Amino acid sequence: MTLFNTHFLTELASSIRSLSIDAIDTARSGHPGLPLGCGDIFSVLYGHFLTIHPMYPNWINRDRFVLSAGHGSAGLYAALHLSGFNVSQTDIQRFRQLHSPTAGHPEYREIDGIETTTGPLGQGLATAVGMALQGKHLKATWHESIDYQVVVLAGDGCLMEGVSSEASSLAGHLKLDNLVVIYDANSICLDGPISECFTEDVAARYQAYGWHVQSIDGHDLSAIGEALGSARQHQGQPTLIIATTIIGKGSQVAGSSEAHGKPLGAVESRATKQRLGIPDSPFWVSEHVAPAMAAHHANVEAKIQDWNRRIAAAGCSLPPLASEHPQLATTLAAIESMTMPSGSATRVASHHVIQQVATLYDRLIGGSADLSCSDSTWMKGHSAMTADDFSGRNIKFGVREFAMGAMASGLALGGMYRPFCGTFLTFSDYMKNAIRLAAMMKLPVIYQLTHDSIFLGEDGPTHQPVEHLASLRSIPQLTVFRPADGEETKAAWIHALQSDGPTALVLSRQNLPETGLTQVAGALQGAYILQASPDARVVLVATGSEVALAKLVWEALTAKGISTQLVSMPCWEQFERQSRAYQTLVLGETPQLRVSIEAQSDFGWHRWIGRDGLAISVNRFGHSAPASDLATEFGFTPESIVARITEALS
Amino acid sequence: MTLFNTHFLTELASSIRSLSIDAIDTARSGHPGLPLGCGDIFSVLYGHFLTIHPMYPNWINRDRFVLSAGHGSAGLYAALHLSGFNVSQTDIQRFRQLHSPTAGHPEYREIDGIETTTGPLGQGLATAVGMALQGKHLKATWHESIDYQVVVLAGDGCLMEGVSSEASSLAGHLKLDNLVVIYDANSICLDGPISECFTEDVAARYQAYGWHVQSIDGHDLSAIGEALGSARQHQGQPTLIIATTIIGKGSQVAGSSEAHGKPLGAVESRATKQRLGIPDSPFWVSEHVAPAMAAHHANVEAKIQDWNRRIAAAGCSLPPLASEHPQLATTLAAIESMTMPSGSATRVASHHVIQQVATLYDRLIGGSADLSCSDSTWMKGHSAMTADDFSGRNIKFGVREFAMGAMASGLALGGMYRPFCGTFLTFSDYMKNAIRLAAMMKLPVIYQLTHDSIFLGEDGPTHQPVEHLASLRSIPQLTVFRPADGEETKAAWIHALQSDGPTALVLSRQNLPETGLTQVAGALQGAYILQASPDARVVLVATGSEVALAKLVWEALTAKGISTQLVSMPCWEQFERQSRAYQTLVLGETPQLRVSIEAQSDFGWHRWIGRDGLAISVNRFGHSAPASDLATEFGFTPESIVARITEALS
Repeated sequence: MTLFNTHFLTELASSIRSLSIDAIDTARSGHPGLPLGCGDIFSVLYGHFLTIHPMYPNWINRDRFVLSAGHGSAGLYAALHLSGFNVSQTDIQRFRQLHSPTAGHPEYREIDGIETTTGPLGQGLATAVGMALQGKHLKATWHESIDYQVVVLAGDGCLMEGVSSEASSLAGHLKLDNLVVIYDANSICLDGPISECFTEDVAARYQAYGWHVQSIDGHDLSAIGEALGSARQHQGQPTLIIATTIIGKGSQVAGSSEAHGKPLGAVESRATKQRLGIPDSPFWVSEHVAPAMAAHHANVEAKIQDWNRRIAAAGCSLPPLASEHPQLATTLAAIESMTMPSGSATRVASHHVIQQVATLYDRLIGGSADLSCSDSTWMKGHSAMTADDFSGRNIKFGVREFAMGAMASGLALGGMYRPFCGTFLTFSDYMKNAIRLAAMMKLPVIYQLTHDSIFLGEDGPTHQPVEHLASLRSIPQLTVFRPADGEETKAAWIHALQSDGPTALVLSRQNLPETGLTQVAGALQGAYILQASPDARVVLVATGSEVALAKLVWEALTAKGISTQLVSMPCWEQFERQSRAYQTLVLGETPQLRVSIEAQSDFGWHRWIGRDGLAISVNRFGHSAPASDLATEFGFTPESIVARITEALS
Repeated sequence: MTLFNTHFLTELASSIRSLSIDAIDTARSGHPGLPLGCGDIFSVLYGHFLTIHPMYPNWINRDRFVLSAGHGSAGLYAALHLSGFNVSQTDIQRFRQLHSPTAGHPEYREIDGIETTTGPLGQGLATAVGMALQGKHLKATWHESIDYQVVVLAGDGCLMEGVSSEASSLAGHLKLDNLVVIYDANSICLDGPISECFTEDVAARYQAYGWHVQSIDGHDLSAIGEALGSARQHQGQPTLIIATTIIGKGSQVAGSSEAHGKPLGAVESRATKQRLGIPDSPFWVSEHVAPAMAAHHANVEAKIQDWNRRIAAAGCSLPPLASEHPQLATTLAAIESMTMPSGSATRVASHHVIQQVATLYDRLIGGSADLSCSDSTWMKGHSAMTADDFSGRNIKFGVREFAMGAMASGLALGGMYRPFCGTFLTFSDYMKNAIRLAAMMKLPVIYQLTHDSIFLGEDGPTHQPVEHLASLRSIPQLTVFRPADGEETKAAWIHALQSDGPTALVLSRQNLPETGLTQVAGALQGAYILQASPDARVVLVATGSEVALAKLVWEALTAKGISTQLVSMPCWEQFERQSRAYQTLVLGETPQLRVSIEAQSDFGWHRWIGRDGLAISVNRFGHSAPASDLATEFGFTPESIVARITEALS
C-alpha cells in the first residue's frame, strides 16, 4: 500500500468538499450533508486505500466501492473526478442536469467507478454483499489471487432498512471478510436526530451477526486509514467501521438535519468554505492533488501489473464474460433440443432446464429464499456456497427475499455471472424495488417466481398472486415470461440467458396438461397462433397455466361453429417488439371479440383485447381451497368461459 | 392469573396436536411442523396466559395473540376451537377447504381471536408492534387501565425477514413492554437446518435492539408459563422468549425440514399420535380440556368484569370506534368547506387537510418513514409518541417503510384509529406486501405517497415512480387517489376517512397551476367532466399533476376547432363504481380518439382509452434533471401533446 500522505489526503478532502459545495450550489439541488461529513472518508478511500485505477476501470480484481447512501453522490463524483475517472469538471458543473452523467443519485454505466446504482436506501449494502460473494466464488473457482475488497459507505438510513439487516446477517453467516461497511454515524436523519427513532446498539447488532466491529473518528484521516487497513487484513469476518462524523461539516447547519438535503445557498456556501479553509474560488481544487494522486496511481498500477504478471505466469487467462462465454451457445442449443417431461408443472419444467444449464454453463449461479424444494431452483450435483467453500453454485439466501434480489444484482454486476434467484411469485413484492433496480441497470438477473396464481390452492390468499403479473409487467426493461408448458419454458430460458436485462419466469405450482401445440420459436416472439382462424369471430389469448384451458374453450367454440383463433402469449414484452403486421395477424384483424384468459388481474389486458374485450381473470383476492374448487369458484372452467363468450357475442 | 394447572395444560397440548394432525391429514395439505413443535406454547397461551374470552372477543383490553408464523394455522385453529371461539369441529375438519374459516393461513375477520391476517413472514411481528403501540397510545390518551399484552409467535423465517428487524428495532426504541415475542427456535427452516443460512446470535441482536431476552425449553410448560409471566411484569423493554422446540415433535421426521410443510399421511399420523400418547381416535380431544378451560375462563371473565367495573367507577365510557366517532362528521364537513392554498403542490394541499383533520378528529394518528418534512405528514401542534410519553399522535417510524406499513395495519386493527403513513411513492415498493395485506384485511389505512412522477426532478430515476400507479391500482380493495389540486385533495381525504379499506393518496412534489374547474363532488365519483363537449372528437382524460396541462391542451385543440372533452380522473376505483351510463357520458359516446395524460406508465390505461387510444405517458425510467427539462424530454408540453393528437386524428 502507498505510504500514508496526510498532506495530500487533507488537500484531497478539501477539494472533494469544494467541488461538492459548488456542484450542489450550481444545481440548486442536492445533499451537502454527506459530502461534507464524509469528505475525509472519501479522501482516504480514493487517495489511499482503494486499489482502483481510472485506466483499468474493469480490471477484474479491482476493489469495489459502493455509496449505499446514494444521496451523497456529489462527494462520489468529486472523488472520481479527482481520481481521473471519466467525469469531467463540466460534468461536475452540470450536476443533476439532463443527460449529465452526474445524476442525483449514482447511476451504473454512467461513469466508470460507479459499481452499482444506489439511492434507495439499504440496497447498496445488500448489493455489495452480492459483489463480495462474487469475489469469493471467483477466488474459489477461478484463481486464488482474486482478493478484491468491497467497501460500502452507508448511512443511518441504510442501517435502519430491513434489506441491510437481511444482507448483513447473511454476510456474517458466510464470513465475507472481503466486505467492509463504513457506517457514517452522524446521528442525524432527515427528520431530526436519530435519538428520536434509532437508538439500538449498532455495534452489538453487527457483532451478533458475526461481524468484526471497529469504531473511529470519521474525521481522523489516519484512523480511517488504519481501520480500513486492518479490515483488509482481518480474516473470517466482514468488518463494520463505525465512523463518527459531523453531517454538513463546516456549514452553519453542521450536525443538524438541516444539513442533509438542502443546498447551502451562495452565501452559506462561501462561509462554509471559509470555515473549512477552502479558497473562495468556484470549483477550486488543490494544486497538490494531481501530482500526489498520480503518485498514488503509479503505485496502484504497479500492483495491477504485478497481479497481471502473476496470473500470466500461472498460465491463467481471464475468464470470459458470461455473455461471451463459449459454453453459452452450446447451452442454448442443448435447451432447444431437450425433451421435456410431459404434463408437468412449469416450475418442474424450469427445474429441468436449470439442471441442463447448470451442467453446461458454469456461469449460472443462484438460489432461493428458503424455498428451493418448492420453487425448484436447486442445482443437483452442485454444492452450496459456504463460508468454508465458496466453489458451490447454489446459494442459500435464507428467508430474505429483498436481500436476495439485491445480492443477485451484485452477483450480475461485472458481467461474469448470470445469476438466478427464486421465491413464490407473491413474495416478489418483498424484493420489488431490487427487481426495479436490476431493470434500471439492465442486469441479466433471472427471477424464478413460482406458485403463480390462485391455483397454488390451499395456502390461500396471502400466498396467491393476483396483481403480481401487472406489477411486474409494468416495470420498464423487465421481461416477464409466463410459459404454458415445457416447450415455452425452454423459450423463456433461451431468452433469459441471452437477454441484456432481467427476466422474470412466472411458473405454475400445479401440473399442466399438454396441448401439443406450443413451440419454442413462437414463444420467443412473445405471442403466437396455436390454432389459426383467418376469419375468426373470437380470438382467445391465454398465458401459462390457462393455455391448456383455452384450448378446451377453443374446441368447444369450434364445435359450436364459432370460428375462433387460439393464441398463446407467454411474454408481452417480446410481443411488443414484433412488427405491427405480426401483432395484427396474431390478435386478429377485426374479430368480434378478443378474450384474454389468465388467472390473475385483468389489469393491463385491455391494451391487447380492447375496451370491449372480455377478460377471464381474477380481480379479487383468492381463497384457501383445492385448486379444482377454485377453478369452479373463479369461473376457470371451459363451460363457464364458453358461456361468458357466447353471452358476449350475443 | 389462574393457578398453573399442569395436568390440564398437558391434556390441552395433546388435544391441540391431535386436532392439528387430523386437520392436516384430512386436508392432505398443511404444515404439521409448527403445531406439533409449538403445541405446548399454544397450550400455555390459551389455557393459562392470555386474557381473552370467547364471549368478549372485542373487549378492548384483551390480550392480542399474533401467529406471525402463519403457516402453523392448524395449531391456532385447534387452540381457538378448544377455547370456545367461533370455530367448530366441522370447521377444523374442513381445514383449507373453500369458504371454510380455517384457511391455509389465519385470516382476520374469519374467526374471532384471529387478530390479523398472517402468512407472509415477518409481517405478523411488525403488525404486532403496531398493536402494542396502539395499546400504549390508548393507555396514555384514554385510560391508564389499558394494559393488554401483545404476544407473537414467530419462527426462524420471521426473524430472518428484514421487516421484523425494522419493527423490532423500533419496538426497542419505544420500549414497548406490552410486547412479547416467542421465538419458536427449532433450528429448521424449509430448505434444511438453519445452520446453513442463519447463524447469527439472535439473543444478542435483540439485546442490541434494547429488548429483554429469555431462553427456555419450549416443551417445558412451567418454563413457558414463567417466562410469559415474567415478560408481563417486565417494565421498560419488549421481551423476546427464545423457546427451543422440536419441529414436528412426535413424528418420524421430527427435528428435520421434512416436518415443516408436508402432511404426515395417514400411517405416520397414527404413529405420531402413538408416540405422543394421543388416542387413535379422529379429532380426539381430551375430556379434561372442557371443564378446566371453563374454570380458566371463569377466572378470565372475573378479571374482565373487574376491569369493566373499575372503568365504570372511574366514570369512563368506552371510546367509540373511529368510524362511529361523532367527530368524524364534523371533520368531513370542515374539510369540504376548507379554503385551500392556490397553486400549491398536492402534498402541501394534503398537509393542510391533515392539519384540519388532526385538530378535529383525534383518531388520526400516523407518521412517516423519516420523510415528514418532505412528504408533508407532520401534524403541527402535536407531539410524537415517545417511550416516555405515548400521548403524541405523530409517529417517527425511521427509515423503515415496510415495518411502517405493517405497523399502520396494527394501529388500524380493532377500529379505534384511522392511521396514515407517508413516504415517497417510489418507496411504496418497500412496503408493497404490507399494503396488500391491509387491502386484504380491508383496513382503513391511509398512505400518503408523494413525489409522484418524474417531475420530482433532480433526484433522478431511482426516486422517480413510473410503474407505481399501475402497481398500486392493480391491488384489489385498495383505492388510489391522484388529485389534481386542493379541491380534489379534499375529496381524496373525504373518501379516505370514510372508506372501509385502505386508500393511497398519490401526491405531487411540485406546485400545480389551478384550473378553476375541479370540484369535490366530481372527484368523489372517480372521474368527471371539466369541459363538456357532447360531440367530442377527442376526449382528454388526465390525472393529478397533468390535469392543468390537459386544460392547456384542451384550449389549444378547441382553438383549432377540434371539439374536445376534458376529464379529470383522480380515482379509477371510484369511477368503476359508477353506472355504465355515467362512465359513457364521461368518456364520450364514440369519440374519434381518447387520450390519457398521466406522467407514469400507460400500463392499464387502455381499459379506458381503448386499444387505439393515445396514451401520453412515461414508459421508461426517468432522468435526473429539473422538472421543466423533463417535461420537454418526455413530451409533457401542450405543443408536443397537441402535435401527437393531431397526428393521431389524421
